[in-house]
Amino acid sequence: MFQSFTATTRPEQGPPRLAALRGELAARGLDGFIVPRADAHQGEYVAPRDERLAWLTGFTGSAGFCIVLARAAGVFIDGRYRLQVRDQIALDAFTPVNWPETQPADWLRTQISGAAVIGFDPWLHTPDEIARLEKGLEGSAITLRALDDNPVDAVWPDQPAPPCGKARAHPLELSGRSSADKRAEIAEGLRAAGASALAITLPDSLSWLLNIRGSDVARNPVVLGFGLLHDDARLDLFIDKAKLADLPADPALSIHPPEAFLPALAAQNGRVQFDPSTAPVAVARALGRGGASGGIGAPDPCLMLKARKTPQELDGMRAAHRRDGAAMVEFLCWYDGVALDGLSEIDMAVKLEQCRRETGERLGAPLLELSFETISSTGPNAAINHYRVTEGTNRRLEPGDLFLLDSGGQYADGTTDITRTLPVGSVANERREAYTRVLQGMIALSRARFPRGVAGAHLDALARYPLWLAGQDYDHGTGHGVGAALSVHEGPVRISRVSSLPLDQGMILSNEPGYYRDGAFGIRIENLVVVQPAPDTGEGRAMFAFETLTLAPIDTRLLLREHLSQAEIDWLNTYHARVLAELSPLVSNEARVWLAKACAAL
Amino acid sequence: MFQSFTATTRPEQGPPRLAALRGELAARGLDGFIVPRADAHQGEYVAPRDERLAWLTGFTGSAGFCIVLARAAGVFIDGRYRLQVRDQIALDAFTPVNWPETQPADWLRTQISGAAVIGFDPWLHTPDEIARLEKGLEGSAITLRALDDNPVDAVWPDQPAPPCGKARAHPLELSGRSSADKRAEIAEGLRAAGASALAITLPDSLSWLLNIRGSDVARNPVVLGFGLLHDDARLDLFIDKAKLADLPADPALSIHPPEAFLPALAAQNGRVQFDPSTAPVAVARALGRGGASGGIGAPDPCLMLKARKTPQELDGMRAAHRRDGAAMVEFLCWYDGVALDGLSEIDMAVKLEQCRRETGERLGAPLLELSFETISSTGPNAAINHYRVTEGTNRRLEPGDLFLLDSGGQYADGTTDITRTLPVGSVANERREAYTRVLQGMIALSRARFPRGVAGAHLDALARYPLWLAGQDYDHGTGHGVGAALSVHEGPVRISRVSSLPLDQGMILSNEPGYYRDGAFGIRIENLVVVQPAPDTGEGRAMFAFETLTLAPIDTRLLLREHLSQAEIDWLNTYHARVLAELSPLVSNEARVWLAKACAAL
Repeated sequence: MFQSFTATTRPEQGPPRLAALRGELAARGLDGFIVPRADAHQGEYVAPRDERLAWLTGFTGSAGFCIVLARAAGVFIDGRYRLQVRDQIALDAFTPVNWPETQPADWLRTQISGAAVIGFDPWLHTPDEIARLEKGLEGSAITLRALDDNPVDAVWPDQPAPPCGKARAHPLELSGRSSADKRAEIAEGLRAAGASALAITLPDSLSWLLNIRGSDVARNPVVLGFGLLHDDARLDLFIDKAKLADLPADPALSIHPPEAFLPALAAQNGRVQFDPSTAPVAVARALGRGGASGGIGAPDPCLMLKARKTPQELDGMRAAHRRDGAAMVEFLCWYDGVALDGLSEIDMAVKLEQCRRETGERLGAPLLELSFETISSTGPNAAINHYRVTEGTNRRLEPGDLFLLDSGGQYADGTTDITRTLPVGSVANERREAYTRVLQGMIALSRARFPRGVAGAHLDALARYPLWLAGQDYDHGTGHGVGAALSVHEGPVRISRVSSLPLDQGMILSNEPGYYRDGAFGIRIENLVVVQPAPDTGEGRAMFAFETLTLAPIDTRLLLREHLSQAEIDWLNTYHARVLAELSPLVSNEARVWLAKACAAL
Repeated sequence: MFQSFTATTRPEQGPPRLAALRGELAARGLDGFIVPRADAHQGEYVAPRDERLAWLTGFTGSAGFCIVLARAAGVFIDGRYRLQVRDQIALDAFTPVNWPETQPADWLRTQISGAAVIGFDPWLHTPDEIARLEKGLEGSAITLRALDDNPVDAVWPDQPAPPCGKARAHPLELSGRSSADKRAEIAEGLRAAGASALAITLPDSLSWLLNIRGSDVARNPVVLGFGLLHDDARLDLFIDKAKLADLPADPALSIHPPEAFLPALAAQNGRVQFDPSTAPVAVARALGRGGASGGIGAPDPCLMLKARKTPQELDGMRAAHRRDGAAMVEFLCWYDGVALDGLSEIDMAVKLEQCRRETGERLGAPLLELSFETISSTGPNAAINHYRVTEGTNRRLEPGDLFLLDSGGQYADGTTDITRTLPVGSVANERREAYTRVLQGMIALSRARFPRGVAGAHLDALARYPLWLAGQDYDHGTGHGVGAALSVHEGPVRISRVSSLPLDQGMILSNEPGYYRDGAFGIRIENLVVVQPAPDTGEGRAMFAFETLTLAPIDTRLLLREHLSQAEIDWLNTYHARVLAELSPLVSNEARVWLAKACAAL
């Protein structure tokens, strides 16, 4: 349960494993093979069995891939992992490659002069991904070959078995909508699109559709499996039956073993819809080979339906955020009272998880697990986006530091994600100026109202504007979608310059501007918000507004009050009054006293 | 020269002209014909000869089209013209059709049961436009036919001749770049794209490329003609030779009559590039029929080059804005001194044009013409976007009104476009609140800094945010591109939710948020701005900022000062100090006294 801070791989394991894999490739007549950090469900978290990239290379980041050739092995990593990869891989055997600046096709062209066959596992790549790679290789003598089984698995003697987490029902009081109702709506869409069935490969789509939750992978309470939803709303479910032992039987579901999925697709007579940006190549190939004449490529229809939360899902999220906020208050109260001297990032993460566990127990709704690995970072570590503390990187909190804490919990009724930035002793004015700007951006987005048709791409600048005025910015999106008792990072809507899908009622997003100075400090403040109809102003225009879900004090000691407008101060005071009113009944006596002070009006 | 306020068409002329056209169509065996408000150059303004839509229907709006069938004639108009069209057409002969809500293909399907042939003039439609229409007609028995000559012209006895305005040189001191240099850069791009030549049909592209200006159409100082730029930078120019009488000969140009354009295209051996979103169908057809194997469809490369103004173009724009600002100050001074009682929208437009003419003469750089028809509107008329006063709609300024004045001038060195909203006597608080919000949005955008990659779509919300907070908005974009001594509406970059082309140094845009209450009042405040590198703040991030070109006081009597932040007041005071410093030397003694008062710090 508790987060682990031990680095799980060692660089020296890589070279012998690489040698074994090369032997396997040579035996199969392959010139190379692609090892992605992906499973068949393209999730953010994968089961230990699917940690092939980490097993082979030592690199444990959440994105990346390795291309193994006879004389080179490139580990492709994006900007977040440029430093981390160098500590985790054996640099005499593997070469870090900056991606996406260097595209895999271009790298292959520089490495290979003549003809070559590069294998890939069709379960681990999407058709869109392979199509891009094939386009990049056009005109070269390098070809790709989908393999029937994965060569890494053949040389990994103690590879873990597939996960078999027990599924639990996600009751109607929390989902707000029966599985039968959801299936009927999607089936109607299939009939309208001329599709006979829908192949479902995303586990959060499947879990949402069936109103079930599971424990197959860390952090995301999803059930791994595949679905085939027919246009009459019947569903074939391809899954290890043992996972469903605790669930009542559902006559509308037919259960099959996972290995029956591809044959079932190939046997369909009608045209089967699938999502070429998320489904495995194996699915597209099965549809192409069967009677289904290639299938119909279209975005997974569960995504948009799942994004607009039901009133019951929102109620669950509100309740989870109250309890999670109470846990945050216990932590913040402790933080302000303890002698920070000598305490470290790991100490903070452990204490926070303890607060979440204890508060959950006390309030009768236990923490199921963290919703992601806590980002507990101080000083220069806080300037590294996606930093995860390990025993190797652990820093002590030093006076003058900004301590950045980004964390969340999974509960039966909801998923949380909150970031607060705290002072360690007295903090320099320049850092407080940046903190004030970050909060101004966060408040501007919180206060926003906007008409139908507006997308995250249009709102992103509101959160950046105060920073931009000072020549500052942050190199990440302003917000991501959040699932209701599901994945903390949920598509398809974001607050980002590239997100052009209009926002709609019930969508939950994070609002998390930041500022990072390399080698010095980092700041981020994050609340979750939900799109709601704005109160009518008599203008005859339907507008949306954001309701804030996250409840926890925002540190006001770091603020330069004179830089805030009255409207910004009003927002902060109103927010803190609400935090105080909603959380006071839920926290310990000591924390209640602290909370009143932390929420005092500016 | 002076703007005319006389409605130029009469509804009763329509029915006999429609009958004549129907006779012509019947004689040609056609079931219908499309009459757009367009010429071969897809410009915002067309020559009198090309006012076929107005001649036939009476409708004089700047966008729309008529589809004439044997028993129906639909006049398609967008939201701006729903009211105007009913005053201008004979409703017993023509039927207004709400467009784009009703698409022409759908309308045709409801009007026609069996097979039908609908003619169109291939000079007046783009390939993209006809492709959309043909797609909409798929599966019906309705087909489109490109005609060799226009049936309207055949029944229009006194149709004016094509315009033959004299072209003048636009000197290097103003353009900053020789035509030869521009042609060489584009020719290089053609070679890289595998094109042998470029068909140029947009007159502002052609005028920019050749560093010439003309007087073929109203308001836009362009030369109508066609160009064929070869990949060795030679240019065939298809134009009435008489237009070029005042220009020195250029050995790199070959001059041909306009009717030689299509045969020349058809005779090309290589592949000719053309822009399917702006070129006539006739051009695409000529390329398809010739040896050019269909041509290469790509955006007109002049557009992006023209959008990034040279330092000399910016200097010219700055000078034009100083003089135009001086003219505005003379008008505003007069407005504050005169008894407004009994004065009308037309009186205001005439007085303003007089100020522009006199100031231009006095400062030695005459007004060449208006850059668009002045929008002079008071009371409820100001709530009508794109309102143009005529003798029929002319209103007197009434106490309590907001008077909205949107206007601009064409000068040898630049093009201006400015909107100010002024009080008529004492104005109700609610209107001042809205005025304050509009100005806050305009200031927010003026102050913006932003990194490379940011597009108008990302900045649009900054100008709307203060209105959105009150549930208010405006139903037009926030800004359009502006030409340098060229078209006041210039593509391809805008500040609008749909404009995803990144902004870049030297681009000139309008910044014009507004607020409109139907039947009551309208507000708009507009300055032109240019994208410039922002001063370095030591953050290591290259940022852009807007330099404001427009110089004229913004009415502060309408402001609710207590609603403004200190940063907003600072911006306004700094702007007014600059207006005072730059314009004081250029205005009359009386206006100088007025200006000092109008620019007083808040």
